[in-house]
Amino acid sequence: MPNAARPAAIPGRLFGLGVGPGDPELLTLKALRLLRAAPVVAYLAPEQGDSFARSIVARWLVAGQREIAIRVPMQPKPPSAGIYDAAAAELATELDRGNDVALLCQGDPLFYGSFIHFFTRLAGRYRIEIVPGVASITACAAATSIPLVARDEALAVIPATLDEAEIASRLGDSDVAAIVKLGRHFSKVRRVLRELGLADSARYIERATLPNQRVAPFACVDAGHVPYFSMTLIRRRGGIRTK
Amino acid sequence: MPNAARPAAIPGRLFGLGVGPGDPELLTLKALRLLRAAPVVAYLAPEQGDSFARSIVARWLVAGQREIAIRVPMQPKPPSAGIYDAAAAELATELDRGNDVALLCQGDPLFYGSFIHFFTRLAGRYRIEIVPGVASITACAAATSIPLVARDEALAVIPATLDEAEIASRLGDSDVAAIVKLGRHFSKVRRVLRELGLADSARYIERATLPNQRVAPFACVDAGHVPYFSMTLIRRRGGIRTK
Repeated sequence: MPNAARPAAIPGRLFGLGVGPGDPELLTLKALRLLRAAPVVAYLAPEQGDSFARSIVARWLVAGQREIAIRVPMQPKPPSAGIYDAAAAELATELDRGNDVALLCQGDPLFYGSFIHFFTRLAGRYRIEIVPGVASITACAAATSIPLVARDEALAVIPATLDEAEIASRLGDSDVAAIVKLGRHFSKVRRVLRELGLADSARYIERATLPNQRVAPFACVDAGHVPYFSMTLIRRRGGIRTK
Repeated sequence: MPNAARPAAIPGRLFGLGVGPGDPELLTLKALRLLRAAPVVAYLAPEQGDSFARSIVARWLVAGQREIAIRVPMQPKPPSAGIYDAAAAELATELDRGNDVALLCQGDPLFYGSFIHFFTRLAGRYRIEIVPGVASITACAAATSIPLVARDEALAVIPATLDEAEIASRLGDSDVAAIVKLGRHFSKVRRVLRELGLADSARYIERATLPNQRVAPFACVDAGHVPYFSMTLIRRRGGIRTK
């Protein structure tokens, strides 16, 4: 039996590394240390083209690290479970060899992260450590200088993928709301906000912390040009807005 | 007129630095760079004793940096506006001298941060840059290995300082909820969760990412020993929970 096929005495560890919203400097010291120490680095990537998560840490990759690009179909078609099954099996093979695997997660691994697909498939069989990262939602607040939540304010985080009635219901009477994953759902969200009289108090942010970051009043956005990495922040009670 | 009293030609910049939930390694590279370059470092501290925010970055402070400890009364008495007015004036004096000021913010500056008090007082008069940090909520999710939000799930973030009816109303039918700032409000929150049948699906986390971090079923917590830095995560729909 060749050596490479024999499981190691001690399996490797899986690190779910939050790498932040996009600015490479928003990586944490812990994620940087674990990234550079890992013999295997894995990340999601579109079927063709570059991985956003990998681009965030590209400058810190170490020569000789094995890279595993997990190719998943782009929106709107959701990736099949089989894709995650196969990718999890590939990670498991490395872990069985005793190799630690750093799985890159843009933003935070547990805040709408695809890390969750791998966690559910590998938890219990392997040691998994999750390293929290700067989430898109606080990055967007910083980009707009809108306090996300203060004092006794409540926050609602709502995915734009829900239907109109659900979005309206979840907006409820929350003081502050973030509607995330706008993309092709922008027009639907705009209808909801207009009906509730909230469109004028909403701010739009795309690609927060990247060089091509854009911050605009929600009303000024062209629905035809809204990327998946965008959200709107809505502040109902008083509050501060300076740019 | 002595030199020190004359305003500099170019005022300094105020940096609101998110320093993360407690583990010093969860500082971002950007916060570290700006912290070490700033001639003045400011932070909130209790009336007596050490500043939590300062303790997170203590190992990276540079000899010769001027430190400004902003002493505020402990909970439950809320600090008066006058305390923030005076502290903002002290920061303004340094900015007028042309000194950059790094204002340390545990977690993220705009996620229930006291940074907001300084932002409202100094924005417009000075250049302010906000550096987002790892927020307590994603750190707590990582500590429990509970996915915070996935796919089309909505999240409600609710401060425990609200009254029972408000907490119940804001819990609404959200898939996942985080009730933050538990502290002396723990018993009240427990009553609400028991009434809604949610107490058994709630996890309790205190001092996430610190050496004395504690994760426990909500039902096992002694209401007499709940620090301010604690929260409960409640997941209503299915989901994953492994420890």
